[in-house]
Amino acid sequence: MFENKNRTPLSDLGEFKLIEQLTKDFSISATSTVKGIGDDAAVLQLSDEQTVVTSDLLIEGVHFDLTYVPLKHLGYKAVMVNLSDVYAMNATPKQITVSIAVSNRFPLEALEELYLGIRLACKNYKVDMIGGDTSSSSKGLMISITAIGQVKKEKITYRSGAKPNDLLVISGDIGGAYMGLQVLEREKAVFKVNPKNQPDLAQYSYCVERQLKPEARKDIIELFEELDITPNAMIDISDGLSSEIFHLCKASGAGCNIYEEKLPVDPQTLSISEEFKINSTMALLNGGEDYELLMAIKTEDYDKIKSHPLLTPIGHFTDQKEVCNMTTGLGQSIKLEAQGWKGFNHD
Amino acid sequence: MFENKNRTPLSDLGEFKLIEQLTKDFSISATSTVKGIGDDAAVLQLSDEQTVVTSDLLIEGVHFDLTYVPLKHLGYKAVMVNLSDVYAMNATPKQITVSIAVSNRFPLEALEELYLGIRLACKNYKVDMIGGDTSSSSKGLMISITAIGQVKKEKITYRSGAKPNDLLVISGDIGGAYMGLQVLEREKAVFKVNPKNQPDLAQYSYCVERQLKPEARKDIIELFEELDITPNAMIDISDGLSSEIFHLCKASGAGCNIYEEKLPVDPQTLSISEEFKINSTMALLNGGEDYELLMAIKTEDYDKIKSHPLLTPIGHFTDQKEVCNMTTGLGQSIKLEAQGWKGFNHD
Repeated sequence: MFENKNRTPLSDLGEFKLIEQLTKDFSISATSTVKGIGDDAAVLQLSDEQTVVTSDLLIEGVHFDLTYVPLKHLGYKAVMVNLSDVYAMNATPKQITVSIAVSNRFPLEALEELYLGIRLACKNYKVDMIGGDTSSSSKGLMISITAIGQVKKEKITYRSGAKPNDLLVISGDIGGAYMGLQVLEREKAVFKVNPKNQPDLAQYSYCVERQLKPEARKDIIELFEELDITPNAMIDISDGLSSEIFHLCKASGAGCNIYEEKLPVDPQTLSISEEFKINSTMALLNGGEDYELLMAIKTEDYDKIKSHPLLTPIGHFTDQKEVCNMTTGLGQSIKLEAQGWKGFNHD
Repeated sequence: MFENKNRTPLSDLGEFKLIEQLTKDFSISATSTVKGIGDDAAVLQLSDEQTVVTSDLLIEGVHFDLTYVPLKHLGYKAVMVNLSDVYAMNATPKQITVSIAVSNRFPLEALEELYLGIRLACKNYKVDMIGGDTSSSSKGLMISITAIGQVKKEKITYRSGAKPNDLLVISGDIGGAYMGLQVLEREKAVFKVNPKNQPDLAQYSYCVERQLKPEARKDIIELFEELDITPNAMIDISDGLSSEIFHLCKASGAGCNIYEEKLPVDPQTLSISEEFKINSTMALLNGGEDYELLMAIKTEDYDKIKSHPLLTPIGHFTDQKEVCNMTTGLGQSIKLEAQGWKGFNHD
């Protein structure tokens, strides 16, 4: 089909470069468009409040594996992934559209399970499902969700607002979803050899749940409202902490120093990484899908958050553009590397 | 995977029944949600104006065939499909999000062609591309677009507003896209036998263009503004006239009578249907993808539209719920049948 043309394999580009290349010539013209591509969500000015819009795709074989992901959980998670982007703008999600493509391999009952999860997510997060599309596919399952949320103009948090000396703060803990994935992948391998084996996942339950049924951080947005805090910048951690730190620094024209020993981690995440002989710091920096929030907090707000169990300062921003360092537990300073999700390497 | 469960094959349901089954238990709770599932687009009240939101999926092998659809045209058409739904609400599209999933078979240059078409559509229709997602897929190309538009509350047109005696009016002409598809399918078959054959499509150009590069009816919405007309009900013709008439009648609790000889058709559509020995009326009633608008116009507005070249009255609504009749050229009255798009019949 493309024989006579130049061919640049997609595997030569990461996701971010690909998006950049494809969208660089688009311009913005509608007066209601405040912000287009380049943040967790787009921003529209349709009234006194601002409206944020974000879309995500989940593809079977790329983002999920139905051998160990129950369809109800998948539906729930697909909504969470999108709501997380809305919360990352400090906005409240109000509506979603859900489009799915499925092959004939799925009976109606399977799709009903999927929608049960979507419905539970809508109920728990007070979001309306307002439309979408349904199609057959030649292979596999695909879910495309768009979420719409609202936020007061003065409360919106872009990636670009971090200032030198702002605290770099993280919600919850990280690395759990990645370690949960390792456990599930191992169980899948065991199941292939011995299908009668009944896995006992009790001791891995926290991390497995982080992977299968993440929750978007609605509580953090509500906490900010309560504490009267508006972060200078915010992003959600979907691709891994290191990658998201670079996004914040790049967008804000800043750098940062973080401290290895401050990284918030659950004991189970540590014990699984030990069992799997995975360097835990690498898992914390590069493991994705935690859907926590990473934000720049003004130093004058430090007192409001300093002992809060949901928020952990891990470092601070600097004026050294895009220079991101981590001080290790041994006191050495190492350069962080931007690692992104690369989906085009497999065939 | 689903061995122990009841299995209802998706092929037992059409698209509409499937959507109905999957979404019946969802409820609406946000105060800003005016209308959820069930029209061309959802409606939100975010300001004095109303906001409409619509999503569509296009799947390779289901909605398009890359052996004869140039990627630039595909990008353009994918946007048109969505804008058409916004216009069907009498709204003006302002923003779109575009999510794509592609296999490694596609080089960057192919995606650039696709985005060139998307960009041209954005430019021609003054719409901003504000975000989306990009992913790899295990097979083929998928495009998911969400469009957002604005309309004054008193101007919005649902499917449900048609009243008995309203005129049933259609924009442009119909059946062309379907006949264009027949031509392209034949050329594909010829190409398979003799790849060196260079097709001469000049005599089919109108219908082929209707199939490959449809235009959404922005001009009709502008015309309504100019003529100070607000239709009582409106829908876009994506699945075929007969199916869309049933949607309007069902939503409005009305019936209708239409006249075969009034159906607007281009001479080329007729000549191709003759060449292909396809009953032209069947093609006009059931051929999809014309992206024309079908509307209920109040009788008092008849004088404003009666000689307009873009608008053709084809019949009128009645108070006989969901009874849709067509008077043939020979004066017989036949019942129309609801035919929808059925995408789950193939494997």
